[in-house]
Amino acid sequence: MKLLLKIMYDGHGYSGYQSQPTLPSVQTALTKAVSDSFGYRCTVTGCSRTDAGVHALGFCAAVEPYGEHEADWLQIPVGKVHRALSRFLPEDISVCAEATVDDDFHPRYSVKSKKYVYRMYDSVYDDPFLRHRAWHLKRPITDEGIRRMNEGAAYLVGKHDFTSFMAAGSKIVDATRTVYSLDVMRRENMIELSVSADGFLYNMVRIITGTLADCAYDTFEPCDIGKILDAKDRTKAGKTAPPDGLYLSEVEYDRHIDWKID
Amino acid sequence: MKLLLKIMYDGHGYSGYQSQPTLPSVQTALTKAVSDSFGYRCTVTGCSRTDAGVHALGFCAAVEPYGEHEADWLQIPVGKVHRALSRFLPEDISVCAEATVDDDFHPRYSVKSKKYVYRMYDSVYDDPFLRHRAWHLKRPITDEGIRRMNEGAAYLVGKHDFTSFMAAGSKIVDATRTVYSLDVMRRENMIELSVSADGFLYNMVRIITGTLADCAYDTFEPCDIGKILDAKDRTKAGKTAPPDGLYLSEVEYDRHIDWKID
Repeated sequence: MKLLLKIMYDGHGYSGYQSQPTLPSVQTALTKAVSDSFGYRCTVTGCSRTDAGVHALGFCAAVEPYGEHEADWLQIPVGKVHRALSRFLPEDISVCAEATVDDDFHPRYSVKSKKYVYRMYDSVYDDPFLRHRAWHLKRPITDEGIRRMNEGAAYLVGKHDFTSFMAAGSKIVDATRTVYSLDVMRRENMIELSVSADGFLYNMVRIITGTLADCAYDTFEPCDIGKILDAKDRTKAGKTAPPDGLYLSEVEYDRHIDWKID
Repeated sequence: MKLLLKIMYDGHGYSGYQSQPTLPSVQTALTKAVSDSFGYRCTVTGCSRTDAGVHALGFCAAVEPYGEHEADWLQIPVGKVHRALSRFLPEDISVCAEATVDDDFHPRYSVKSKKYVYRMYDSVYDDPFLRHRAWHLKRPITDEGIRRMNEGAAYLVGKHDFTSFMAAGSKIVDATRTVYSLDVMRRENMIELSVSADGFLYNMVRIITGTLADCAYDTFEPCDIGKILDAKDRTKAGKTAPPDGLYLSEVEYDRHIDWKID
């Protein structure tokens, strides 16, 4: 039996999710917190490798005791582990739901779909409350711009080879992914792009966002998005949007997860 | 002619608005930024003295050259000053509107009303994106709790002696203030208290918030709020809510201000 944690984190202070020898990472902070909290070494396996500065609203990580600890493993009732953990977690990481899963469950390989949200804002001035949390587009985006972004986005929905929307130099053999939904909407002063897919390539959401922003500003026509996709060439797409606005929002698994939080 | 700036700031890193000899303050940061930007010493006068950790969405501050600088004063077009200033301001302070005002205008004495917003949230877990930006109430607030807060709030609207809602030891002779509106509403996972008045006593919004939260949790009955007000005794009211959730939201002046931002 593994413990599955749904966590939120402000990624600004981290070099990404994945542990790295000398840089602060979410995985290292989480592994230390669960180990200190349970009183013995634990391993933590995440659902994804988010980049430096990328945030999470619903990242999933499985926790297991490292050695022989089955006897006293998970004595804290599931739903209340976050209370013990919060004493050991840094304040930019928080557990928002908990579950137990079978040993055959893998937080990455059991994923059915993932959803990312990308937040932008377009006021003339910097918003201090959005620094490191959204991409500041200094030119306003009109309602017509939002409409153009959605018209362009429609070309990306479905099963496609997303080579044009993958960081150059990625060592992925098959860049085919299925995008289930992709839409852009304004929420007060924010513009929010939401994308759900069976998987994502390296920098895929950030390149999609950068390219659709070009579409809002008339640098690209909405129909160009289809041509960029067909080209299978990263240089045809727009720039990679900064990590600040990206949030791993939800992970859906191939089985029901009985989430608890008390 | 004075330059009036409307500023937003994340107050977490500051000991308050007001300059203090050895502590970081918004006034010191702003004075340094305008002086560096204009190339000569300027004085900055604020609309209010916000406390350590308190935020602002629409704080107003008047800027004047310190000595003889009328000749080259305000050569930057009003509406574009923020562009020059943003290079010198720390990233937790930002100018969101600009105007010119007559010399008889005073950012504090010309105030007609001020509005504060107090943000709370009541999820079981800590939200890393709301740390230092909202008060985390660890017990959920029901719809009935919100209704009770509003029923209690109604006793405070109007012209009253707010001694019970003023920090003990304040040297204010007349604690009479007129509250124009006071209401509490839920917005998704947030609970937002908005209060508008002709002026506020020291800690007034934070004591009102702490007391109305007690009302939501049945520690006080809504009608107790009237009795607490009548008692003119700080010890009868609830606790002072933390500064993290407090935002100076809007300042209305006794004259029209022609705000610009380009």
